[in-house]
Amino acid sequence: MTAVILDGRALAKTIAEEIANEVAEFKQERSFAPAIAVLRVGEDPASVSYAKMIRRSFEKAEMEFELHALPETAGEGELLALVTDLNADEDVHGIMIQEPLPQGIRPEVIIEAMSPDKDVDGVHPANAGRLAQVAPAGRPPGVSGYFVPATPAGGMEILRRHAVELKGKRAVVVGRSNIVGKPMALLLLRENATVTICHSRTVNLDAVCREADILCAGAGRAQMIKGDWIKPGAVVIDFGFNRLGDKWVGDVDFEAAKEVAGMITPVPGGTGSMTNVMLMKNVLEAARRQMAR
Amino acid sequence: MTAVILDGRALAKTIAEEIANEVAEFKQERSFAPAIAVLRVGEDPASVSYAKMIRRSFEKAEMEFELHALPETAGEGELLALVTDLNADEDVHGIMIQEPLPQGIRPEVIIEAMSPDKDVDGVHPANAGRLAQVAPAGRPPGVSGYFVPATPAGGMEILRRHAVELKGKRAVVVGRSNIVGKPMALLLLRENATVTICHSRTVNLDAVCREADILCAGAGRAQMIKGDWIKPGAVVIDFGFNRLGDKWVGDVDFEAAKEVAGMITPVPGGTGSMTNVMLMKNVLEAARRQMAR
Repeated sequence: MTAVILDGRALAKTIAEEIANEVAEFKQERSFAPAIAVLRVGEDPASVSYAKMIRRSFEKAEMEFELHALPETAGEGELLALVTDLNADEDVHGIMIQEPLPQGIRPEVIIEAMSPDKDVDGVHPANAGRLAQVAPAGRPPGVSGYFVPATPAGGMEILRRHAVELKGKRAVVVGRSNIVGKPMALLLLRENATVTICHSRTVNLDAVCREADILCAGAGRAQMIKGDWIKPGAVVIDFGFNRLGDKWVGDVDFEAAKEVAGMITPVPGGTGSMTNVMLMKNVLEAARRQMAR
Repeated sequence: MTAVILDGRALAKTIAEEIANEVAEFKQERSFAPAIAVLRVGEDPASVSYAKMIRRSFEKAEMEFELHALPETAGEGELLALVTDLNADEDVHGIMIQEPLPQGIRPEVIIEAMSPDKDVDGVHPANAGRLAQVAPAGRPPGVSGYFVPATPAGGMEILRRHAVELKGKRAVVVGRSNIVGKPMALLLLRENATVTICHSRTVNLDAVCREADILCAGAGRAQMIKGDWIKPGAVVIDFGFNRLGDKWVGDVDFEAAKEVAGMITPVPGGTGSMTNVMLMKNVLEAARRQMAR
């Protein structure tokens, strides 16, 4: 058996076109474009290249992008003042703070200073809390107007667009970060999956993974999930993006896994390709909500 | 094998005495007592008797209790105004809004109007989000100063005081409400358990329950968890409180379960007895934090 390869790159291209159309409509109606402000302190190479990638996607969809790159020496007060300005700036609909921040700047202080309504990266506790509190699919949500981190949102979009049934399925999420594992678990729970969260302290991780109809990997360890950890026919969503020798690999041993799984995302070209477009979706949504007030 | 009975009533008594001592110290230092304001709209009998129970516990510990009981006819605006007043009132350290609220009052609007710093019931999204985002035990927490709903906090306290090892254990939580199941799952995850969340859509719930070293029931269905759903030696925490004929029973079939489990909370006299004292703990903590500013 060879798995269906879930092509995130192709799907992202489709969604980017959908968004570009929606942005064109938005601009026609409003005569301005949804805008993101990206904040960075210092020149961490991964952050620099990620910001460039975001800029390219936003410009292609004719959305506004502004970068605020502060020097490595900038202090917490300076960054806080910038966040406060951007909160008040009506021309900015979404704010994204790139990490890592230099020592001496507490990320949680900066994040909590952001208006939750502009937190298009879904990292503010108010947004995490609304996701944690939202009612399951099929019931009135209770809470609304929150943002979900783009990476797990992209994983969910892949599942949805491939019509993967989640209700009543066993889902296992490996990793419990605030931007991948935990929100992914809550999103799967919202869709009525029975969800297990694993992490570095999990005992017999291989056996737990084998329970999964839907296996999501967000541990950040190259190829840690082996082919024989996968239940035959399972759907595998790999959020890992790890350097191994001269290439990029996921958290799953793709070559072995694709012989067992029913569907699997490749790395690169899987979930990573989706992150950008989900961020664009969030910024468009933020602009709409801010206009609807 | 007969399980150790986890006597929540006795533990609650011990903790109430500890709190009374801490309150006495607090009062000596500050010359006022930590105070809770309980808000109710209408006269739902369960809410009325719960408020009376809270009053008794608070008075016994010499903490302040005030009840704001609005008539059934009160509107959202009236309740919002009251919450705003209590947010600003320096003599009130904790606020608890009793549900159900009458039709026409949106609970999420009232809850979000509360200052998260006074949300001693842990229902505000900002508090739910901080719990969702907190780092696992043994790492710097990242976020701080949040409140956890009293019922799951009580369940965790029972586990802690009986020195139940959680790290690396399989924990299964049945039920995903915002005041019991989901926060309990996040608390167990924080303590490095491998956590599975089950609910009404879970398939083969009996088999999933049998995986649990720690089984927590918060589904609200009388005796739904049978004796043979329990792994021999498991620790069972029952949050259920259901009327069955002329008595109160948990979500677990206690008589059968206690022959299989290693430890189990009874109903009544288990987790229910702890809720009150955990609320008192939260109010004392809120008062301390507000004074530390």
